[in-house]
Parts: sequence; structure tokens; C-alpha cells
Amino acid sequence: MAERSETYEHVMTPEAIDGFVRDHFPAAHGFSRTLRVGEGRCRIRLQEPGEMHLRPGNTVSGPTLMTLADTAAYFCILSLIGPVALTVTTNLHIDFFRKPELGRIEAEARMLKLGKRLAVTAVELFADDVLVANASVTYSIPPPEHRGG
Amino acid sequence: MAERSETYEHVMTPEAIDGFVRDHFPAAHGFSRTLRVGEGRCRIRLQEPGEMHLRPGNTVSGPTLMTLADTAAYFCILSLIGPVALTVTTNLHIDFFRKPELGRIEAEARMLKLGKRLAVTAVELFADDVLVANASVTYSIPPPEHRGG
Amino acid sequence: MAERSETYEHVMTPEAIDGFVRDHFPAAHGFSRTLRVGEGRCRIRLQEPGEMHLRPGNTVSGPTLMTLADTAAYFCILSLIGPVALTVTTNLHIDFFRKPELGRIEAEARMLKLGKRLAVTAVELFADDVLVANASVTYSIPPPEHRGG
Amino acid sequence: MAERSETYEHVMTPEAIDGFVRDHFPAAHGFSRTLRVGEGRCRIRLQEPGEMHLRPGNTVSGPTLMTLADTAAYFCILSLIGPVALTVTTNLHIDFFRKPELGRIEAEARMLKLGKRLAVTAVELFADDVLVANASVTYSIPPPEHRGG
Repeated sequence: MAERSETYEHVMTPEAIDGFVRDHFPAAHGFSRTLRVGEGRCRIRLQEPGEMHLRPGNTVSGPTLMTLADTAAYFCILSLIGPVALTVTTNLHIDFFRKPELGRIEAEARMLKLGKRLAVTAVELFADDVLVANASVTYSIPPPEHRGG
Repeated sequence: MAERSETYEHVMTPEAIDGFVRDHFPAAHGFSRTLRVGEGRCRIRLQEPGEMHLRPGNTVSGPTLMTLADTAAYFCILSLIGPVALTVTTNLHIDFFRKPELGRIEAEARMLKLGKRLAVTAVELFADDVLVANASVTYSIPPPEHRGG
Repeated sequence: MAERSETYEHVMTPEAIDGFVRDHFPAAHGFSRTLRVGEGRCRIRLQEPGEMHLRPGNTVSGPTLMTLADTAAYFCILSLIGPVALTVTTNLHIDFFRKPELGRIEAEARMLKLGKRLAVTAVELFADDVLVANASVTYSIPPPEHRGG
Repeated sequence: MAERSETYEHVMTPEAIDGFVRDHFPAAHGFSRTLRVGEGRCRIRLQEPGEMHLRPGNTVSGPTLMTLADTAAYFCILSLIGPVALTVTTNLHIDFFRKPELGRIEAEARMLKLGKRLAVTAVELFADDVLVANASVTYSIPPPEHRGG
């Protein structure tokens, strides 16, 4: 099946990503921890889900999974283009197909196309290694002169 | 253009919806306030957005808008079928196209098709009456024998 | 509800759009006829659906509706920015919720946000004036120096 | 990364799928050829793209890719549940990110969740083995008593 795939060079480590979030998005700090980046992918884990992330029956809420998908996509981009705070989501699609029991909730974003202006990612969401949802997340990347740092 | 449209009968008031959420989803209580329901629509407003709903530059975060869209769709369904806690999102698509400045952040869900098993809604999101994002949200409705109350 | 909405000025008539397609996309010519444009909207009708657009039971196929949605979005953009052949779809989402009986099959695209690089539209699809599907279609607009004409 | 994944048993061969289409959807026959099924996946190739599948510059049209994605998803489901003509698409999302030059145009659908009523697939689209688009396609499966054959 050997598809030709792009080779991606990551410029931020998981620690650098989490540090960048702590410094620039204090409100988001603590939501997730970045587990690893590499080969165009970034995997993160939901940190200590709070009461607001849960639903009756101890399942993880849909909005929590959406936020995790959006976060994984953003971190995947950051890891490849460096710390660009002004990158914004342009569209997100998510299919939910299994009830995510509370446990290890993780998201893995995979870069499909890193263009000059748009970055398209596919994100899989897992609860204890079982696939529970699948997302597509596109971000708009500001032109270099507006990137700030 | 007079399209034929369905006539919907709402069985829950805004107050009943907010009360149901307070009783069954305490973690979600206080996130939004339901402004009105009618003609197959439900409009809600983000309540006192907290620090975690904001981004640098005082804009409202993407996940906050997604959560608001998902919530408006759910309440629209509740208003039409009555209090069914186990209804779950099966898919959500959202396009973001304007930066939502902090202000009156509202979402209006419109029922497109209320089937026996799936409910499809279109949701528009506004910041101070300016359209900032557009979503499609589909919920799965449990069969009557599993609805609980 | 009086939302503030943008005022759009259309620069192509239905006849000009259909003529542009005939000249530049001969393969697509005859697929649809443009009924009207105005107020940020464009409405088109499926022309003489051929055997390949149908499914057993004389319903219109999903791909035919997707193509019609994509076409209506494109024409809506054309009507607002003028004849730009190189505009391309970046993403499309569609929910199907009623079986479209063969009859007057129409799509109406509404411009949600016409930016410099992206145009976001909402498209409703009708069979004999009954809403059968709902789509979101985003196009990428080439920068002015690459537009050709 | 060893995620736990489901084991899928395929009940139709590529030849059986293409024969089923020829017999039940004559209008769709000849559009694609099924290359292989297995491990929850189905891969198909666009057959002799006609003039109507192309765009100026000899690229493959967006609607052709959407149709191919929808078809691959359908065949993936068929291969797993057997010949069920009345299965219908409930939603499709597609991101286009590279211009698909005319060449070997293929789609590979992967089953994410085969439920009793909904089947969720992820579909990747390739032009000469380069990923050009990514889709999510959900089908509604009729209850057994309405499946016919």
C-alpha cells in the first residue's frame, strides 16, 4: 500500500508545547499533557478531568472530546511551525461513535497537509486505547509577518 | 421562496430546560441561559464567560463556541421531545469565520429534521448579533423504551 | 431577532453564470440552471436528471445532491466576485435527512462570510420545496494576481 | 501505540461488490473498480474518468472525488454486512487539500465503527499515491427486516 507520505520535521518538543501554552494560554494550561510528537503526529492526554468534563454515568462529555481534538490539532501544528499564537481553527468536524468511559482519554492528531495558509489534520480520540471519535480539524496559519512569537 | 416547512410543537419552556440541566447536568449548569424556543428553534446565551472561555485579545475560544453550538442543538431537541437525558451527539461540523469579540455570545439552533432516531439541526453563532460561526449538529435519540426521564 | 447581516452586491446575473460555465466548464454545462441570485444567495435547479443521477426507486443519488450543493456554492461566489475559474472547494459537509424523490431538485446557497481568501456558504437542498439535505461549503479564492478571467 | 482495534470479517469479495453494483445500480456501474477489501478496509479506483469528471487543467473535479469517497464507504460497508441496497449516506465531510492531477485516482475507506444502525468510515483519496483529500462518511443501515437483497 506504500503511499508516498510527506516527511515532517518537528521543531517543538512536548515540553516546549506545554510550556508555550502555560505562558500564552494560562486558561488552557492543565487541560492536557502532551505525550509525544513525531512523524507528523502529536498525541496528548486529558489531564485530571474535572466535574465539568463529565456526564451522568461517568462518561466524558462531547465538548471535552471536541476541545481535546482541537487542542491536539493545534499542538501538532505548533510542533511543526513553532510557537504561533494567532493560528485559529477554521473548521472542525467530529463523529462520535462510542461512549467514552472515564479513563485514559487521549487524542492523536496527524498532519495531512501543511500549506502556507491552511493546515489540515485528522484526529483520532481514544478512551483506554479504544477509538471513540474521529475528527478533521483545519487551522488557518497567519502569514509570516503576523505571526508574532 | 415559500418553502414548505414542518410545524413543530415545543413541549418545554426555556425555564424548564434550564431547570432540567441544573438537575441532571449540574456541571453544565450556569454555562448558558436559554432565551427562547419556538418555531423549531432554540436560542441560548453564554453566561458570564469565565477566563477559561477566553483567548488572548479577549476573544471567545473555539471550544467555547463548539460547546455552545452543541448545547443549543441539545436544548432545541429537548424542547421538542421533552426531557431525555440520554440523547447524544453523533456528529458536529462547525465553520469559524470571524473572531468573536467578547460581548453577547449567542447560539440559535434550528431543527431541520426530527426523525425517530436522529435529529439534525443547523446552529448559527453570534457575537453582538454578528454571525461568527455556523454549525451542523446531529443527535441520536434513544428509542422510547430507553429514554428514562 | 434582527441580526445584522452583510449587504452583498452581485456582479453576475444567472444568465452570465450559466454562460461562464458553458464556456469554461463544458463538462458541467447542462447539469444545472441558475434560477436567481440576490441578497447573498444563489438558487439553482438540477436540469433533466439523467439515469446516472438516480437510484433504484427513482430517488436522486447522494453524489448528485453533493454536486448540486458544491455547484450552488460556487455560483454564489461567482455572482459576488465575478468569473474566477480557479476558485476551488476546500471543504464540504452535508447532512442528508430525507429521501429526495425525483421532481424539482433545487439548491440554494447563502454566503455566510466572503473573505479575501476563503468564502463560507450554507446550502439547503430541496425536492419539490421540501428540505432534504443541508450543506456547508467553503471555497478558497485565489489572490487577485492569480484569478485570470 | 498499539491501539486495540476491532477485527472485521468481510463477506463480499471485490468481484462480488462490483457485480452487485452492476446488477442493482447500473447507472453507477463502470464508475469505479474495487481493488481489494480486508482488515475493515476497502480500496477502489476511478475507472476511465470521463470528460465530466475533469476540470480545466486536467484535474479531477471535487464532485468526482466526493462520489468516489461515498462509493468507497458504501462498498466497505457492503463488504462487511453483505448486499444491502437500501443503505444510505447520512452525512459526509470532505477536506480537499491538493489538486488531483489525472492519473491513478483511488479511495480507501476504513471502517471506524460498524453499529447496528450507523456505520462510520474514514476515507482517504489519492492521486498517484499522493493523499489529495480526506473524508468522513456515515451511512445509515436499515434494520434487518427492511434490508431486502
